[in-house]
Amino acid sequence: MKVITTIKEINEEIVKQKGLGKSIGFVPTMGFLHEGHLTLIKKARLENDIVVISIFVNPLQFGPTEDYADYPRDFERDHALAESEQVDYLFYPSVEEMYPNEPSVRVTVQERTDVLCGKSRPGHFDGVATVITKLFNMVMPDKAYFGKKDAQQVAVIDGLIADFNFPVELIPVDIVREQDGLAKSSRNVNLLPEERIQAAVLYKSLAAAKEAIDQGEQNPSRLIELISGMITSETNGQIDYVEIFSYPRLKPLEKIEGSIIIALAVKFTKVRLIDNFIIHLD
Amino acid sequence: MKVITTIKEINEEIVKQKGLGKSIGFVPTMGFLHEGHLTLIKKARLENDIVVISIFVNPLQFGPTEDYADYPRDFERDHALAESEQVDYLFYPSVEEMYPNEPSVRVTVQERTDVLCGKSRPGHFDGVATVITKLFNMVMPDKAYFGKKDAQQVAVIDGLIADFNFPVELIPVDIVREQDGLAKSSRNVNLLPEERIQAAVLYKSLAAAKEAIDQGEQNPSRLIELISGMITSETNGQIDYVEIFSYPRLKPLEKIEGSIIIALAVKFTKVRLIDNFIIHLD
Repeated sequence: MKVITTIKEINEEIVKQKGLGKSIGFVPTMGFLHEGHLTLIKKARLENDIVVISIFVNPLQFGPTEDYADYPRDFERDHALAESEQVDYLFYPSVEEMYPNEPSVRVTVQERTDVLCGKSRPGHFDGVATVITKLFNMVMPDKAYFGKKDAQQVAVIDGLIADFNFPVELIPVDIVREQDGLAKSSRNVNLLPEERIQAAVLYKSLAAAKEAIDQGEQNPSRLIELISGMITSETNGQIDYVEIFSYPRLKPLEKIEGSIIIALAVKFTKVRLIDNFIIHLD
Repeated sequence: MKVITTIKEINEEIVKQKGLGKSIGFVPTMGFLHEGHLTLIKKARLENDIVVISIFVNPLQFGPTEDYADYPRDFERDHALAESEQVDYLFYPSVEEMYPNEPSVRVTVQERTDVLCGKSRPGHFDGVATVITKLFNMVMPDKAYFGKKDAQQVAVIDGLIADFNFPVELIPVDIVREQDGLAKSSRNVNLLPEERIQAAVLYKSLAAAKEAIDQGEQNPSRLIELISGMITSETNGQIDYVEIFSYPRLKPLEKIEGSIIIALAVKFTKVRLIDNFIIHLD
């Protein structure tokens, strides 16, 4: 595995590999790799000749009150993990390398952002879309891998690729779950012991909603009531949101049809958890 | 020459040519080709294996009060001209092909736009940068050609390529002039006979300013006075602006140094003319 810190060098390597006819799989990350990332990297490893991962904590996607400085970083551990997953190139640029001056242009995301987690993070997805535009131009991947855990991010990247015509295939990767269904997250360790047991209800409520849809339920409000009811009665968590939209456009639905997302966020004592089901109906 | 109307097909052709190791030169246009465009195409033809030109009147870069519907179009003439210049691919997509739905993302140009012609055209350069982002992703050119006549557009594209890290080389092409120095433009035919004679003063005033700089003048205001004085006394035109900025950043200057642009716009009876000098000082 080669560690690369400059845009010039990653570009030269990619051009060389493309000249040899190699396919490029790309996993952009902010580092502090966990099992979710490793799932993406393993999938990229299976599907491409060359695997590139980037580690870059992107200041542009943090709001002024958010934790950019405190975002966890552990390059040595990440390096060892990437190496063990047989990554070919670990791209690890500095902020100065990525943003040598105040950028004259920026991507503005005009849809898919005023719902779910985006509601409380104005500008967040502009920062994500801008850095991904830059990274796509540097790495020129055939396929780019994103986890469905952050389904709204997948929806935004889907729009970015489609509407800017990037020659990149988006590969959304399924959520990895614990045995009881809880979506894996580095944050799960911050659940209190009884909360950890209760937290399985998040998955169970989504599964119950899917079951209801399979049984013919077409009313989004009734599904939201079903989910909210289970979470409220079976956990001590505070519901931040339970929402159902079309997917990936994230438009409100009067009736369950087409491709949809059911997404939720619930606050426990020391941690806020998110989860979602994306369901494709005929 | 192949005429291509779909994104899928242009992309397939480009991937095929790149696979053969061919270099791609690209000239994006809104059609109604004139000598300025042909100069760009000839230069692209000399410097690349494959020449692609696009003809697309981009609705996104027209303001609500601007002349999108009335913008001149003549595809048959353009087709003949492109063919005679040995263009390989003429990309001619419809609006529906380029914008099949309301785009979820857009490029926002944050600098270089609130001066010169950009001042009076809010959003214009966002539309330009958005369509160029799309076209770059479709055509994947090694080199892209833009005329220096629209020096602000060149500055915006320079920022777009640098700040989004497009693997594209920007080739700005010199202004083509009539014998008396007047910058060539389809619009020159709309000058009244005596205005056509006077209009050479635009070039002469820029040349006089350059001469003054060569002689040691370092004060932007005095240069602007020199130019404005000549235009006012030797033409019936109304000065829209005479401005001097750093180039390509288009920042105000206290002193003439580095790379600069001297740009002007003058209204005659039926036509508004623009011209500029870009000067590189040590």
